[in-house]
Amino acid sequence: MENTPIKPQINNNNLDKGYSLLALLQIINIVLYSQFTQYGMDSLGTGSNTQSNTITTYYPFFKDVHVMIFVGFGFLMTFLHKYSFSSIGFNFLLACLSLQYSILINGFFHNLFEDHWENITLDIQSLITGDFAAGTILISFGAILGKVDGWALIIMTLFELVFYAINESIGVIKYKAVDMGGSMYVHTFGAFFGLAVSYINHSSTKHRNSNFVSTKNSDLFAMIGTLFLWIYWPSFNGALASGNSQHRVVINTVLALSNSCIFAFISSKLLRKKNKFNMVDIQNATLSGGVAVGSSADLVIGPYASLIIGAVAGTWSVIGYTYISPLLEKRFGIYDTCGVLNLHGMPGIIGGLGGFISSATASKNLYGENLGIIFEGISDGRSNVDQGLYQLAALGTTLGISIGGGLITGLIVKKANKDIEYGEDKENWHEV
Amino acid sequence: MENTPIKPQINNNNLDKGYSLLALLQIINIVLYSQFTQYGMDSLGTGSNTQSNTITTYYPFFKDVHVMIFVGFGFLMTFLHKYSFSSIGFNFLLACLSLQYSILINGFFHNLFEDHWENITLDIQSLITGDFAAGTILISFGAILGKVDGWALIIMTLFELVFYAINESIGVIKYKAVDMGGSMYVHTFGAFFGLAVSYINHSSTKHRNSNFVSTKNSDLFAMIGTLFLWIYWPSFNGALASGNSQHRVVINTVLALSNSCIFAFISSKLLRKKNKFNMVDIQNATLSGGVAVGSSADLVIGPYASLIIGAVAGTWSVIGYTYISPLLEKRFGIYDTCGVLNLHGMPGIIGGLGGFISSATASKNLYGENLGIIFEGISDGRSNVDQGLYQLAALGTTLGISIGGGLITGLIVKKANKDIEYGEDKENWHEV
Amino acid sequence: MENTPIKPQINNNNLDKGYSLLALLQIINIVLYSQFTQYGMDSLGTGSNTQSNTITTYYPFFKDVHVMIFVGFGFLMTFLHKYSFSSIGFNFLLACLSLQYSILINGFFHNLFEDHWENITLDIQSLITGDFAAGTILISFGAILGKVDGWALIIMTLFELVFYAINESIGVIKYKAVDMGGSMYVHTFGAFFGLAVSYINHSSTKHRNSNFVSTKNSDLFAMIGTLFLWIYWPSFNGALASGNSQHRVVINTVLALSNSCIFAFISSKLLRKKNKFNMVDIQNATLSGGVAVGSSADLVIGPYASLIIGAVAGTWSVIGYTYISPLLEKRFGIYDTCGVLNLHGMPGIIGGLGGFISSATASKNLYGENLGIIFEGISDGRSNVDQGLYQLAALGTTLGISIGGGLITGLIVKKANKDIEYGEDKENWHEV
Repeated sequence: MENTPIKPQINNNNLDKGYSLLALLQIINIVLYSQFTQYGMDSLGTGSNTQSNTITTYYPFFKDVHVMIFVGFGFLMTFLHKYSFSSIGFNFLLACLSLQYSILINGFFHNLFEDHWENITLDIQSLITGDFAAGTILISFGAILGKVDGWALIIMTLFELVFYAINESIGVIKYKAVDMGGSMYVHTFGAFFGLAVSYINHSSTKHRNSNFVSTKNSDLFAMIGTLFLWIYWPSFNGALASGNSQHRVVINTVLALSNSCIFAFISSKLLRKKNKFNMVDIQNATLSGGVAVGSSADLVIGPYASLIIGAVAGTWSVIGYTYISPLLEKRFGIYDTCGVLNLHGMPGIIGGLGGFISSATASKNLYGENLGIIFEGISDGRSNVDQGLYQLAALGTTLGISIGGGLITGLIVKKANKDIEYGEDKENWHEV
Repeated sequence: MENTPIKPQINNNNLDKGYSLLALLQIINIVLYSQFTQYGMDSLGTGSNTQSNTITTYYPFFKDVHVMIFVGFGFLMTFLHKYSFSSIGFNFLLACLSLQYSILINGFFHNLFEDHWENITLDIQSLITGDFAAGTILISFGAILGKVDGWALIIMTLFELVFYAINESIGVIKYKAVDMGGSMYVHTFGAFFGLAVSYINHSSTKHRNSNFVSTKNSDLFAMIGTLFLWIYWPSFNGALASGNSQHRVVINTVLALSNSCIFAFISSKLLRKKNKFNMVDIQNATLSGGVAVGSSADLVIGPYASLIIGAVAGTWSVIGYTYISPLLEKRFGIYDTCGVLNLHGMPGIIGGLGGFISSATASKNLYGENLGIIFEGISDGRSNVDQGLYQLAALGTTLGISIGGGLITGLIVKKANKDIEYGEDKENWHEV
Repeated sequence: MENTPIKPQINNNNLDKGYSLLALLQIINIVLYSQFTQYGMDSLGTGSNTQSNTITTYYPFFKDVHVMIFVGFGFLMTFLHKYSFSSIGFNFLLACLSLQYSILINGFFHNLFEDHWENITLDIQSLITGDFAAGTILISFGAILGKVDGWALIIMTLFELVFYAINESIGVIKYKAVDMGGSMYVHTFGAFFGLAVSYINHSSTKHRNSNFVSTKNSDLFAMIGTLFLWIYWPSFNGALASGNSQHRVVINTVLALSNSCIFAFISSKLLRKKNKFNMVDIQNATLSGGVAVGSSADLVIGPYASLIIGAVAGTWSVIGYTYISPLLEKRFGIYDTCGVLNLHGMPGIIGGLGGFISSATASKNLYGENLGIIFEGISDGRSNVDQGLYQLAALGTTLGISIGGGLITGLIVKKANKDIEYGEDKENWHEV
């Protein structure tokens, strides 16, 4: 029963001074890099020349995460066939901006929270954490996909990176809460931040369902994204782990993902109307196991537990897409274009809770001498139950900062946003 | 001269109790994992924390094989434009099921054949061998693509994994036949098993050629699959090798694949009507070198020999697609949707024979002290000619078990299969 | 104001004796491989069996470069929707031919220039340098895309590989000029060679603009190519580096690419008509940072310098696509289908000049003991300013040999080319 949307004129003279401002911002960025960054030890001209150089260990993981950010997220969002150029294009642009800016912003806040000021060293791990930040921004982008344009998206990126850095610094430095795979700091944060921005920015008079549809081809392009995300997720979860810890991340993540896939298919068949698969479930819910197992991925949870986590995540994700998202739209006016709540939000919370349970039950039996390596807080003298409570605190703080920060940012975005037709490539691209 | 096919009604009420049964099967699976599997040594909480952890060596190969299974096979089969959702979707589902179940089934049969019962340890090599099993199932799926649905596909997967495990255990444990790259245990087995199932299950009254066609776009989607399979094939062949052996696998496989590519183009031009390339050749025959060199890939065959193997495989594969497959359809009623005989079956036999020749001529001159590492049988005292005969025995056994097992499974599949329209996504998917 | 093109009859009887000649050439190739190549030390049956085997270090880089050559270039050129089968098909074929032939041709010329004759050893590094040569041929193919067919393309490949090998041998052996990432020997060479061939072979009476267009889907297929090229470019630049040098390559390349992406978007918006993004810019100019930073990628230039290089390259590349390419067409009759001048030619020159500047200012302060490893010439006693002059000499020689060799080859190609319709798959493929 939506009102007939007022269709805004597609701007043919589209000079967006936002892009000139972006050029200026980039020049400032270069100056900041020249003043405050330097090569890290392993990349100095005098650095290690052997296989012990960290480039050997971390570069493979960086590449996989890079594929997930640029191909994975980029193509997944091309399911909207009238907006696919914008999906893959803005994904490309925002991810690059996030990578560059987050290195500076994270560096700033880490210095601030550790009360210790030094230049930011750039090495392969910096690029990986930069990609993690980009992932967060792109998850939020998925919630508002098709509705926020140009300079407003860039503004959102800047503000979100600040709130992201604050939350991550609190969680990692103050709480010493572990979050291998970013179930909390990346997925939960990105989803709820994006939903908050969407809530402020959605206009039902402008929303035309007919622009937010897929075709057979656009669904296949999206599957490119889905499959590369699914395949490289163990690298996302294990990028900063090593040794037996990393080995466990891979096994746990692969098993969880295999079951979120299987249960996404089962649930889609059983729950969707006419008992037929819905491509949205196959493109998204199949991935939820990777998110849900995240915080526990390096913990000794046992292979069967990963299968359970995946089964629950895949099922719950399809329930989200089938029932919860439509409900949020109709009752609360919260529109979530890509259903990030169902792939990142709720599975992220499952992941955070899983991290709480696994921490509270951690013991030297399971970890031997490595207990203090995995849980820095425990090596500082904390009990495992206290560690579990800190995990919960990190989850709660993440929800608070993401929703609060998202609402604030949403108001700013609303002012900066252009009055364009939702979900339409013609606004920004030639000859579509 | 086909009869006018009787077009079955597309089911709009499609509740397939098979998927509920699958959910039950998955719960049983989780229980079995909890009872019979555990983390392997390198993934225990007390495992190695250095670069010597096997995750460092094997994870890159696992990732590549994973890309081949999920992106490679998945997209290759989307050439059928009316069935592409089902191709890529069932590929995704069956591969995950195969990965999970084969770990248990292979573990069971290895225990049985070695007469030594212990829990199954999960490590990165388990995931790789699980993907090898998945590859076998997907090759068979290619033979019957479009004709077998839902629960029947899952049943086929279960039974095939059992026959696969029995054959592989005989070959590896009893015969000690080497099969780097799985020319016999994966490719030959998967192809002939699939052809046998297809023979039992094909109904010419239901077969409509007009559903089994490609479009320009679907052919380009298929090339995504082709190219990723082609690129990562050296990892498939070399996943469980190491050192100089692995180095040789890569060189031999890359050279063989480059020549199966070139000769596929040459043969396609020269043999196809109007002397124009046929996309089916380019999508499939280009890959045949990787299959054909498989069993010999780690053996000292000389770079020129890899080029010969590739040239022969690419040419023979196109001859298969051009002449042999149509003949099998018309004369024998054996339908092979993806032409797996031409890419996996016959090149797999070439590979097995190559393994026989290389083994029979193996010597300390070529291998030095490594001779016993490559050929466990020779290190047990066997002569190289005997080793060669065992290679032939493995090839023969593979053909026997795959065809016999395939015929039996085909009858079971026939009972479980749904009466649906062949090659049509509408049966299973929304809004295509 | 183009003349009405004379549309040639599409050949329905297309037997191209060129492909039979190719089969003969391949047989000769196999004989040459059997006489003049052998496994390298690390791939002999007696080679190293530990992680020190070079397969461990170099295989990951080989795989990434392989993805760039076959998926990256292959899909990028499918933007031409009426020619996409030919784009991706000829890319596949020419790359395989280049890989095989360049190993022999490069081996021959290296022996010649070093005046030292020995068999060619094949190892993983040979495959990488073979792929570099293939990249050069494919860049040239991009300039003439749609206009040169069949046997003429193969002839071009052969001749280009000879000129490529001569130029690279002069640069590496005689000048000892560094060119990490091939800004000069691959990108500049390939672009100007291709433009020279195009200049000789373009016929405006045959050129129909309506065949050289993209559709929404073909532009999305092209983005598969763009994104995989963009992601793996650090591996292309760093394939033959190691240790701290490789670490720097990755950081410098990622930063440069992120800014060529951002500035391609900015420039496209500001410069293109109606101030809308043009997909050609997003598909190509975003990559220019990787080319431009190439020669300096392993040098200690500072992170901010990589950002500057990327910004300049991205902007200049869009200026090229928007203004320079149309000018070259109208005024000089130089047609450049893929705009290789703007992605490879001019950014390659930027890269070469960057190499000159960084060399001339290199010092022990920056490099410590590694100075002589990075600059072999300096370790032989040269001053850094002299090294810089040799860099310029290599750039100049590259331009000379590529243009001269391209004009000569262009004349030969013109004789060998078939009279076919430009940019039309129907000439070579079934059922498009």
